[in-house]
Amino acid sequence: MSIRVGILGYGNLGRGVECAVKQNEDMELKAVFTRRAPESVKILTESAKVYSIDDILTMKDEIDVLVICGGSATDLPVQTPEYVKYFNVIDSFDTHARIPEHFANVDANAQQSGKVGIISVGWDPGMFSLNRVYGNAILPMGCDYTFWGKGVSQGHSDAIRRIEGVADAKQYTIPVPEALAQVRAGETPELTTRQKHTRECFVVAKEGADLARIEKEIKEMPNYFADYDTTVNFISQEELVKNHSGIPHGGFVIRSGKTGWNNENTHIVEYSLKLDSNPEFTASVLVAYARAAYRMNKEGMKGCKTVFDVAPAYLCAQSGEYLRAHLL
Amino acid sequence: MSIRVGILGYGNLGRGVECAVKQNEDMELKAVFTRRAPESVKILTESAKVYSIDDILTMKDEIDVLVICGGSATDLPVQTPEYVKYFNVIDSFDTHARIPEHFANVDANAQQSGKVGIISVGWDPGMFSLNRVYGNAILPMGCDYTFWGKGVSQGHSDAIRRIEGVADAKQYTIPVPEALAQVRAGETPELTTRQKHTRECFVVAKEGADLARIEKEIKEMPNYFADYDTTVNFISQEELVKNHSGIPHGGFVIRSGKTGWNNENTHIVEYSLKLDSNPEFTASVLVAYARAAYRMNKEGMKGCKTVFDVAPAYLCAQSGEYLRAHLL
Repeated sequence: MSIRVGILGYGNLGRGVECAVKQNEDMELKAVFTRRAPESVKILTESAKVYSIDDILTMKDEIDVLVICGGSATDLPVQTPEYVKYFNVIDSFDTHARIPEHFANVDANAQQSGKVGIISVGWDPGMFSLNRVYGNAILPMGCDYTFWGKGVSQGHSDAIRRIEGVADAKQYTIPVPEALAQVRAGETPELTTRQKHTRECFVVAKEGADLARIEKEIKEMPNYFADYDTTVNFISQEELVKNHSGIPHGGFVIRSGKTGWNNENTHIVEYSLKLDSNPEFTASVLVAYARAAYRMNKEGMKGCKTVFDVAPAYLCAQSGEYLRAHLL
Repeated sequence: MSIRVGILGYGNLGRGVECAVKQNEDMELKAVFTRRAPESVKILTESAKVYSIDDILTMKDEIDVLVICGGSATDLPVQTPEYVKYFNVIDSFDTHARIPEHFANVDANAQQSGKVGIISVGWDPGMFSLNRVYGNAILPMGCDYTFWGKGVSQGHSDAIRRIEGVADAKQYTIPVPEALAQVRAGETPELTTRQKHTRECFVVAKEGADLARIEKEIKEMPNYFADYDTTVNFISQEELVKNHSGIPHGGFVIRSGKTGWNNENTHIVEYSLKLDSNPEFTASVLVAYARAAYRMNKEGMKGCKTVFDVAPAYLCAQSGEYLRAHLL
């Protein structure tokens, strides 16, 4: 029997989960839950139904795992602790500083309900975190480096769009090649924010807007741009649509460590992602962990987990025998 | 209290384990067991003792985990199933085709003894296997590529040394740059053995040896060289010592996969290692999994495991709270 998946929230991420479920033969999409009017939401999977979020509990016994596709700012802190009372759940909570608090909230309710909730799944947090942990465990004498990009930062693009006179915008985060090269060469530089990444902005201005003021406001925006070397390119809406409609992303986690009695040998472990679609890749990670949540719960486990707590074998549809024979 | 580690077999790998234990503050090296006369084996750790392998059972209660550093051909198939009767054990068994059999043998005895045995730990099998599993789980529509090198292949170097007229030799395995580039570009080529790697040999010939015959014998050696483009360089013993004494290695695991309703988006996940010392890095992985074996056994787990069965959090000395706050 297939693992029956529910999706809560049908934006880019929810659609990505739908696509990922289709690729996994041991899973089936059962339902999409939405805050919008259900009849206004068109999904791709013919065999699945759209429900109002208000009716979600009526599906309690027909969903093996619920993938919560809301935002980290206001949706997930409420939804994940709430729905783990009834479902095994997965989320992609990515406000790093608030993970301990979110973990505690989800864990309290999951311990009560006997369900599994895996939080902060995706690529960062997620696959990048895993590589930081493996790197730290294997090479305790060493340094971690995480670079993001080249890719679109949704938050930074939104911040530009809020500036007066801006009609539309896309922002790319780009690792500084010299910094990457230094780290890969086994040097262990201390890098400032500015030395690690640059920011490139493509901005569509409204007619008659003061371009110099917009550029200045972007470059001086605290937290978002002030600490970076930022370039601003004004382009037309047509150009933006033609050349900057994708949501690519990626990045690098590098562990540079020493071994030997006197730390005489250097080792570089590098993990990198080059993603055509950030939300679809994130969704693919969510779906693999959805399988794990279902299986772990079936074995009697409960409580809040992160990617650190999930043995890799739970992620794969294939059996342990198969994995040992073919992938080990 | 520290995790008390024993090492069985004190060659390059055993010495690497000794060095790695020194880097981990929660571990201490208690004993080295050897088939040689114990008084003939000098180790680096002042607080540890060398014992004959014949006395290993007298240390049963003073070792929390035994790292078995023998060879895969004849040592490990015997030693790992034997010593898991008395100890939590780790090995680096790397004969891929015989892993299922080795797993079954270790598991049978570990289930009886209540100990944990983690087999096939290192980087391939080991970290590379993990990346194959994560890649397969996340991007089920995709292809795996594993490239090794640039690095020294001990087995191939040994094979050259067995040729008549050869005094010494080192063999490097090198990935073909064009193949790597193709895979990274998201093409999914079917690559033959010859298209993936080349082999470069540095050979010291005995005086008066027939160089042409040696070169021919190397290049035509079945399994080892016949399927590769191989270059043979004759050099002096001094040059070999000066330029080819290290044991570097490394490689790449790349998962190239598709997502989207019609598989329209491409994602490249790449994991790479650049290692100054193959045995020291392997040893560092062994030691991280030694910590995991000890902890998992303390929690009541038993039986044979591989890297696929070990949740990453077990590998790190730090607590779950710490990992969530700092590495997630």
